[in-house]
Amino acid sequence: MSQESLPAAINLREKLTLFSELWSPKIVAQMNDYYFKLVKVEGEFVWHSHPETDEVFLVMEGELRIDFRDGAVELKQGEMTVVPRGAEHRPFAQRECQILLIEPVETVNTGDAGGERTVVDPEWI
Amino acid sequence: MSQESLPAAINLREKLTLFSELWSPKIVAQMNDYYFKLVKVEGEFVWHSHPETDEVFLVMEGELRIDFRDGAVELKQGEMTVVPRGAEHRPFAQRECQILLIEPVETVNTGDAGGERTVVDPEWI
Repeated sequence: MSQESLPAAINLREKLTLFSELWSPKIVAQMNDYYFKLVKVEGEFVWHSHPETDEVFLVMEGELRIDFRDGAVELKQGEMTVVPRGAEHRPFAQRECQILLIEPVETVNTGDAGGERTVVDPEWI
Repeated sequence: MSQESLPAAINLREKLTLFSELWSPKIVAQMNDYYFKLVKVEGEFVWHSHPETDEVFLVMEGELRIDFRDGAVELKQGEMTVVPRGAEHRPFAQRECQILLIEPVETVNTGDAGGERTVVDPEWI
């Protein structure tokens, strides 16, 4: 491995300053066939599930509630959860919340629900 | 999904208070066939590689240097890197550093090097 190809040091807070759009995940890293994505959210997303995969949410800033059909999980800064494959869920944030998502490359934000809030081809930042 | 089976909110800083051993990864979450592990390190680890997988290091506290054969990557708090599969590397921390590792369930800390610092069966915390 030459010096030029050394892995990057990825500063998540710096990356978060590079965009302001809500509900539009940006890719910051790839590990095998998984992406690490940053996303800013506020308000309520659509109910959806990912039948093929678990999904990790790690809160970088703010507070996130993830509604499930039978309850909710509340996450503060520095907290993470694993949404199990197939579990219907709906992220919600009272105020802007900044999140690191970890999920397979092919995972789409709206899962099985589709619709206008689907981001088909997230950009790298 | 019943209330009892809602996913846990995993507080990484709280988990870090639960152990003090160095170089002994503790599992805090599983996403598909990947583990999320916390580890505290200080000093120099062994040179090794993981021929089958990339490996993510995210620094929770402190500073980490990862030596490669042709250079080094330095990570501060809030920075992450992806060590590519097969790349020989050696983590080093001048002072205690706390890290979140993300890698496949079957990944062993010493990779292809083995030896006395191998942790065969990390515990869940």
